[in-house]
Amino acid sequence: MKKIIKQRSRKAGLPPGSLVHIGEQTGEPVRISIVDYDETSLSERETNDIADCFSQRDQPGVRWLDMEGIHRPELLKALGECYGIHPLTLEDILNTDQRPKLEDFDDYLFVVLKMLSLQPDGSLAAEQVSFVLGPSFLISFQEGFKGDLFDPIRQRLRENRGKLRKGGADFLLYSLMDAIVDYYFVILEDLAERIEVLEEEVIAGPGRKTVVKIQHLKRETIFLRKSVWPLREVLGRLERRESPLVRGETVIYLRDVYDHSIQIIETVETFRDLLSEVLDIYLSAIGNRTNEVMKVLTIIATIFMPLTFIAGVYGMNFRYMPELEWHWGYPAVLLLMLLVSLGMGIFFRRKRWL
Amino acid sequence: MKKIIKQRSRKAGLPPGSLVHIGEQTGEPVRISIVDYDETSLSERETNDIADCFSQRDQPGVRWLDMEGIHRPELLKALGECYGIHPLTLEDILNTDQRPKLEDFDDYLFVVLKMLSLQPDGSLAAEQVSFVLGPSFLISFQEGFKGDLFDPIRQRLRENRGKLRKGGADFLLYSLMDAIVDYYFVILEDLAERIEVLEEEVIAGPGRKTVVKIQHLKRETIFLRKSVWPLREVLGRLERRESPLVRGETVIYLRDVYDHSIQIIETVETFRDLLSEVLDIYLSAIGNRTNEVMKVLTIIATIFMPLTFIAGVYGMNFRYMPELEWHWGYPAVLLLMLLVSLGMGIFFRRKRWL
Amino acid sequence: MKKIIKQRSRKAGLPPGSLVHIGEQTGEPVRISIVDYDETSLSERETNDIADCFSQRDQPGVRWLDMEGIHRPELLKALGECYGIHPLTLEDILNTDQRPKLEDFDDYLFVVLKMLSLQPDGSLAAEQVSFVLGPSFLISFQEGFKGDLFDPIRQRLRENRGKLRKGGADFLLYSLMDAIVDYYFVILEDLAERIEVLEEEVIAGPGRKTVVKIQHLKRETIFLRKSVWPLREVLGRLERRESPLVRGETVIYLRDVYDHSIQIIETVETFRDLLSEVLDIYLSAIGNRTNEVMKVLTIIATIFMPLTFIAGVYGMNFRYMPELEWHWGYPAVLLLMLLVSLGMGIFFRRKRWL
Amino acid sequence: MKKIIKQRSRKAGLPPGSLVHIGEQTGEPVRISIVDYDETSLSERETNDIADCFSQRDQPGVRWLDMEGIHRPELLKALGECYGIHPLTLEDILNTDQRPKLEDFDDYLFVVLKMLSLQPDGSLAAEQVSFVLGPSFLISFQEGFKGDLFDPIRQRLRENRGKLRKGGADFLLYSLMDAIVDYYFVILEDLAERIEVLEEEVIAGPGRKTVVKIQHLKRETIFLRKSVWPLREVLGRLERRESPLVRGETVIYLRDVYDHSIQIIETVETFRDLLSEVLDIYLSAIGNRTNEVMKVLTIIATIFMPLTFIAGVYGMNFRYMPELEWHWGYPAVLLLMLLVSLGMGIFFRRKRWL
Amino acid sequence: MKKIIKQRSRKAGLPPGSLVHIGEQTGEPVRISIVDYDETSLSERETNDIADCFSQRDQPGVRWLDMEGIHRPELLKALGECYGIHPLTLEDILNTDQRPKLEDFDDYLFVVLKMLSLQPDGSLAAEQVSFVLGPSFLISFQEGFKGDLFDPIRQRLRENRGKLRKGGADFLLYSLMDAIVDYYFVILEDLAERIEVLEEEVIAGPGRKTVVKIQHLKRETIFLRKSVWPLREVLGRLERRESPLVRGETVIYLRDVYDHSIQIIETVETFRDLLSEVLDIYLSAIGNRTNEVMKVLTIIATIFMPLTFIAGVYGMNFRYMPELEWHWGYPAVLLLMLLVSLGMGIFFRRKRWL
Repeated sequence: MKKIIKQRSRKAGLPPGSLVHIGEQTGEPVRISIVDYDETSLSERETNDIADCFSQRDQPGVRWLDMEGIHRPELLKALGECYGIHPLTLEDILNTDQRPKLEDFDDYLFVVLKMLSLQPDGSLAAEQVSFVLGPSFLISFQEGFKGDLFDPIRQRLRENRGKLRKGGADFLLYSLMDAIVDYYFVILEDLAERIEVLEEEVIAGPGRKTVVKIQHLKRETIFLRKSVWPLREVLGRLERRESPLVRGETVIYLRDVYDHSIQIIETVETFRDLLSEVLDIYLSAIGNRTNEVMKVLTIIATIFMPLTFIAGVYGMNFRYMPELEWHWGYPAVLLLMLLVSLGMGIFFRRKRWL
Repeated sequence: MKKIIKQRSRKAGLPPGSLVHIGEQTGEPVRISIVDYDETSLSERETNDIADCFSQRDQPGVRWLDMEGIHRPELLKALGECYGIHPLTLEDILNTDQRPKLEDFDDYLFVVLKMLSLQPDGSLAAEQVSFVLGPSFLISFQEGFKGDLFDPIRQRLRENRGKLRKGGADFLLYSLMDAIVDYYFVILEDLAERIEVLEEEVIAGPGRKTVVKIQHLKRETIFLRKSVWPLREVLGRLERRESPLVRGETVIYLRDVYDHSIQIIETVETFRDLLSEVLDIYLSAIGNRTNEVMKVLTIIATIFMPLTFIAGVYGMNFRYMPELEWHWGYPAVLLLMLLVSLGMGIFFRRKRWL
Repeated sequence: MKKIIKQRSRKAGLPPGSLVHIGEQTGEPVRISIVDYDETSLSERETNDIADCFSQRDQPGVRWLDMEGIHRPELLKALGECYGIHPLTLEDILNTDQRPKLEDFDDYLFVVLKMLSLQPDGSLAAEQVSFVLGPSFLISFQEGFKGDLFDPIRQRLRENRGKLRKGGADFLLYSLMDAIVDYYFVILEDLAERIEVLEEEVIAGPGRKTVVKIQHLKRETIFLRKSVWPLREVLGRLERRESPLVRGETVIYLRDVYDHSIQIIETVETFRDLLSEVLDIYLSAIGNRTNEVMKVLTIIATIFMPLTFIAGVYGMNFRYMPELEWHWGYPAVLLLMLLVSLGMGIFFRRKRWL
Repeated sequence: MKKIIKQRSRKAGLPPGSLVHIGEQTGEPVRISIVDYDETSLSERETNDIADCFSQRDQPGVRWLDMEGIHRPELLKALGECYGIHPLTLEDILNTDQRPKLEDFDDYLFVVLKMLSLQPDGSLAAEQVSFVLGPSFLISFQEGFKGDLFDPIRQRLRENRGKLRKGGADFLLYSLMDAIVDYYFVILEDLAERIEVLEEEVIAGPGRKTVVKIQHLKRETIFLRKSVWPLREVLGRLERRESPLVRGETVIYLRDVYDHSIQIIETVETFRDLLSEVLDIYLSAIGNRTNEVMKVLTIIATIFMPLTFIAGVYGMNFRYMPELEWHWGYPAVLLLMLLVSLGMGIFFRRKRWL
Repeated sequence: MKKIIKQRSRKAGLPPGSLVHIGEQTGEPVRISIVDYDETSLSERETNDIADCFSQRDQPGVRWLDMEGIHRPELLKALGECYGIHPLTLEDILNTDQRPKLEDFDDYLFVVLKMLSLQPDGSLAAEQVSFVLGPSFLISFQEGFKGDLFDPIRQRLRENRGKLRKGGADFLLYSLMDAIVDYYFVILEDLAERIEVLEEEVIAGPGRKTVVKIQHLKRETIFLRKSVWPLREVLGRLERRESPLVRGETVIYLRDVYDHSIQIIETVETFRDLLSEVLDIYLSAIGNRTNEVMKVLTIIATIFMPLTFIAGVYGMNFRYMPELEWHWGYPAVLLLMLLVSLGMGIFFRRKRWL
């Protein structure tokens, strides 16, 4: 079972700006890729050496520095010093339990998002992605290697498709965020499908595990919601912002992502409504079933109790029971029993139980 | 069963402005109708050739270009280039999973609405309608051919009834939106009627399918709500807007549609309340029914168990059971049984179970 | 059963400003009463001829024109032309499914309210009342003849009681709205009483019809709420308004009606809370009752099943059953049965079922 | 049972400013106490004669005029004329169904509060208190004699404790409101205690009356809430107000009462949450109990039905039933019955029913 | 059981500014620690004598005065006079039932927070901490000795780690608040774990105590929520404030704590959602269980009632019952019984009850 919250307590009591990584320790190496591009040229390289990041800082064009794996605080610290990143920002990057947020540090914008991905077993994995947007550079920090959502962007950069190479670092930020937000729709579709399957299961006849499945989906919806609401806030603030780091022509595009985030929120809210409904149907199905069981019991008992009673009466050992001596006594009693059964049947039919 | 969300995932990872149609592929041709009119003259023609749309752009008066069917992106692209429409707008037109919205691109206003229509089988169909409002033209994009809500407007244009020919492109936009919003009332009435029928069914005695029907109506209410809330936003923003594209005299009319949208929202909310109520009645009806079944069972068991016991006692084979030898033993026991039954009857009457 | 919404669909597709009456056609004549008054003089007359309304427009003082019955659009149209009323306003007056609203058309204020009245059979009837407030005239439109809430105002005008004759048309408007809002309290008291009666019924022991009654009251509360919320909006906007048509000295009085509307809303919300409570008690009463039925069944079954079993044992026909031969066998078995019953009784007493 | 709303309908149709008392007629006399004080001197007197109130109006210092009992409109009217109070204010004072509010009439501030008090029988009584705050006088109107919350203030005035004598009329107003609000905490404590008792009762085992008690407490919470929410509004507006009648040094103190009112609201909301919880526990307790009753029934039936059946088999009168002739037949059957019982016992143990 | 509210009523009727301690009287002495520091030097001392606090007031640098235990009002009063603290502030410090708040008294800022701590028995203890922030001093008041959350700060001051010694009194305030807020995460983790354990318990099969545990956790969540919401308010106002007492460089850090408070609120809300879910599962588990009990009962009754009836029939003592004389009668009847049982078995299998 997924943990509800991460073990942030490890950090309680430390001074602010302490760089402690609170996620799991994967042991994998940190991978840094550097892309320098402008409209006409592009150079791309991958490195493990943090010193590479400091070279050639002053060339024109845009530099995109993507760090995958953040479990080595010392690398972050070096990077932060080189690019002038505030210690609190570095702390937030490490602290992978952040909620999505946007902070304006004059020199740079700091954006934290949650990148969701569907795991092979169908569960949701959330990975924190942080962006530091400077005038001519963008640094992205990914928690791990779980997703490869940024690969299409890299491909587009190489092939010089669309506006990407012409835009600045802010347009690159937009493109990456768009890729992340677009992937939310994949997750929504997956959820929608599972809700539909569940709905059909509930109507067909719920089993023992149904309520656990409903609760599971509800839970995923709750978590999804928790990461989407602040996302909207971030995008809304980006879109409204007059920061010189975000240029006017990018704002139109940001408005587009912002609209998507609202659409995601509304869909998540619809999911919540649908799941409540499914639970209602489930509960009424249980109620109905109890009802049906009761009816069977009542019909059986109501038919056989009087019959058994009649049989009991003629099983009594009184010396003087005239009926016992009658020649047609036995058939007469059987007939009586038949009539009683028929009467009961008519009674139940009238009550619409049969 | 209607899909909750459309398969937008097809688009994940593509650069912004990629024109991909995510709706169903109908295979029907795209139909374009062009109406050029001013207060005194009107010319109307229908075409399949996109080139027709570019002709005669500079005549005075208003041009209304209505495109039915948007599954051919290349037509859209040509149109967009001719009328100066931003690629993001074109993308939104194609992307038929948009929520209603209003965007101001200085040169034009872009409006997305949902046009709902009742299908012959009683289900709701939603079709996306997009409008691009320029200074002297209005382009409308309909997803398909499902409804003909715009026909009365065309008729009014031809007959020069009302203010339509005297107004500008913004008044035409208002008239089309008014037609769409007015049709919502038809849907509300249909829903209201079905809720009332359901309510009577629940009070008369709910069947197995009732909960599915309640859930079905709830679902439609949820979807209706999802398209109406942003509609109000769009209309509210239009009404408040000082955009030179919307003239003052049209604003009064827009206020009217805006009021209608609020009324629709309130009615939808009332429907939600009513459906919750219906569910409450349904659940209490199930509870009551279980109760009644229980009572029948209890009455039967309570009457016959003692009787069967008495019969059992006199069915015992003890050698020395004096009652068995009495001459009036058998009638006396029958009398006893009768008295026990009467006692039980009185007990139940006192409890108001009979 | 009251219709949830009116058949507005009759109007779908018509051009804006089309005058179509969507209420029921009563067939009764339209009654117009005209009161011209100032501080010293008052003339009152009733007419069926619309032309009367146009006479003497320019005398000083205030003219109150009250039209009862709005099912003759042609009269409205003539009136509208004479007093300069916008076609959209006339459409709204006819369209008796409006929500309460306030519109400022510079020359006049247009106010729509719902006038509620208790019908002899205890149900609520809603009637739309529209006001057009000009600088020196007030035109009121009542849907029908159901209520006579305006009679006391007429009486006060005639008798020159209070400030009414000294105030302008805006004070007259206030007085009429005050009369309408005051009547809401009568309805609230009626509802409060019915809720209390219902509450006592539920606690004393709910019957089959109780849930229908709860639902009925809930429904009335929902409808009441739907007309009161926008009422507050209207009054709030009137009170804040600097329109030259509403004078400062009237605003103090409007604040008073505004306070009343808030009080009405809060009372309605309290009613909703109380009705939810009543439903909770009702449901727990059903649960308790099922419980009690079960107990009776269980007690009966638990006592008689063992006894019947014992009787059954000694009804077996084995050849060698020594007990059957004992002289005290029969009394011993009866004693055993008595002891078993007592044991069961003690068991139930310990469980507090008896 | 407390009435939900007062009979305001008595007033429907009367002109605004009509002085009609809608509370109960107690028949007790109206008591007026007058305190004139400044930092050095204090004179206090009690009177039944309204004329006394008009004397000595122009002395320096503060006059506090406290009227207990408002059922004599003519006294109010005389007072109102002497102190320049608007007829609408007088109407509101009489109308004891007001919601707490603050109105600024330039010459004076008008404040309406609800003074709650615990009656000896544990129920809540609400009394309306109105204040008219002038530049150098404060008039307070109490509905009846139920509480004596103002006595400590009188005592403090006499003993010249604290800042009271040094402050102006606004500080006196603050002190009286503080006394009223402080008493709310007494009521909250009483409610808290009753909720805790109820909670323990529900966990220990709910009785028949429990749901009525829950509903009773819920109801009191609803009423408490209804008077506290507007109270916060009043205090918030007082605290923010720049009216010359409220001096800056008093505002700090008002902020304090305002904080208290927020705290009261939050506590009331917590009570609502707790009571919902109690209801949940109650309902699940009923469910559990039904469950337990069912289990007993099922265990008894499941054990004795097979046994009775076996006994029945050997009670059959077939001529050729070899077992009946066996010498050990009877003990063997008893043994069989024992084994069946044991089997059932193991079955129930495995299901954890025993 | 924890008291819902403290006995504030002790204070009702007292003049404002009365210093009365409403918490429990621990009898422990009051401990005062004084730390005077600047970037280069630090002197620390602990005292019981209030006079120590007045010495050396005018040295440069920052003074941190920490008072643990506030049950001696006279000490507070002396301190208040020395540092110019308003009587209302002192009253609020003593009144340990305050909700978190921020008040700006020009000369100083007054902040009240709740410091939560986990007691050894797993329950939550809340302690009120008040701060008075002056230009160069910070006075902190702790209710008791329950927690030692401030020790790490003291340690950091001594060791001159981080920015603490370089910052002013406002940075010290931030550090202390950060320590308190960080500890909330420890509590959230504890709660999260308990919710998960409970969830598993409910799915595995709820016991009698489960609902009490759910209610217990719900209650803690309610209380947590009640102290966190105003905390966010306080931090939000601090972050936005332009008070000269809070310097710009500290605001960045305050924004960080503010973000944490939002995260805490969202987690608490998620907990509420999860607990509602757990309750839903619990209730459906009870429903399912009743269902299962019913099924067992019905299966047993439905199988044995017909069998017992058959046995009863052949236990009748009619003289002429041909079957009884048949040689194969007994085996035939046993076979019939077997067939009936099998038929029932097939019936139940078809209904999926077996």
